[in-house]
Amino acid sequence: MKPNISAIVAVTIDGKIARHSGHFTDWTSPEDKTFLRSLLDKSDAVVIGNNTYKTAAGPLSKRNCIVFTRTVHDTERRGSNLLYYNADGPSSIGVILESYRAIALLGGTQVYSYFLEHDLIDDLYLTIEPVVFGEGLDIFKCKNEATVNFHLTAVKKLNDKGTVLLHYRRPS
Amino acid sequence: MKPNISAIVAVTIDGKIARHSGHFTDWTSPEDKTFLRSLLDKSDAVVIGNNTYKTAAGPLSKRNCIVFTRTVHDTERRGSNLLYYNADGPSSIGVILESYRAIALLGGTQVYSYFLEHDLIDDLYLTIEPVVFGEGLDIFKCKNEATVNFHLTAVKKLNDKGTVLLHYRRPS
Repeated sequence: MKPNISAIVAVTIDGKIARHSGHFTDWTSPEDKTFLRSLLDKSDAVVIGNNTYKTAAGPLSKRNCIVFTRTVHDTERRGSNLLYYNADGPSSIGVILESYRAIALLGGTQVYSYFLEHDLIDDLYLTIEPVVFGEGLDIFKCKNEATVNFHLTAVKKLNDKGTVLLHYRRPS
Repeated sequence: MKPNISAIVAVTIDGKIARHSGHFTDWTSPEDKTFLRSLLDKSDAVVIGNNTYKTAAGPLSKRNCIVFTRTVHDTERRGSNLLYYNADGPSSIGVILESYRAIALLGGTQVYSYFLEHDLIDDLYLTIEPVVFGEGLDIFKCKNEATVNFHLTAVKKLNDKGTVLLHYRRPS
């Protein structure tokens, strides 16, 4: 059975997920971090790019992680819960993911874009922090422009500072 | 007296204001267009970049417009309610704007960025349409990275499709 895949994204008002590659998300609110942890607890695997993984390897060490990277040829297991995966290699991502039920997609840009382009995102949780960076990394950077429609299923204010959580789902 | 300046921005979920320069906002909801019109009716001048102006000159023809462009040296008046302005020229934007009370800033990227960099944005109205483009133009493209904090003052769902309007204000 196909797992449910949730892209979990924290952005600034101007849609940036980080200032630059390797920028740890030290700018998100405690309330968003609590929300993120609760969603991860409901997921049985995390998909993440290698650059993003390096900024968060500690907190993720107990979770099943599939790390997208071009540093391996195909797949490479490291310990019981860490799998490195090259999306350009011979193994199909569908086969790798089908042993899971609920997958949390944590970015960054390249991994979010890969899942959007392959129409693999079921849920999108967008946390908007009340700050502007003016430049930085986008959620998606796709090769071709697209028009992908979502349904908004919930809007929630997470704190007094003005952090907003939007939950979208792909129409089935 | 300094006028109140409201940046009015419609974006996709992934923070894009258009697919490319010259892309008319044919993808925004009727409810957002109604909201935009009501805000324009409360403003006594519009500030807009020349590319964006060209996509909306008709609907804006009755309003006081200050059009940012490098095609004039300084300022150039065309008719009673249209002023072309070169931000690199000798005239100060502050002097030009001080005869107005409420200004609506309509973009695009260069004009939004100019006003952010000069700390001239008082209110930011962000409409998020439930669609993803995957690539396109950002709200801001600043020369230097910044951390500009805003307060969220209102969240409103504009329709059943899931268009959301966020109203932010700069802390005074």
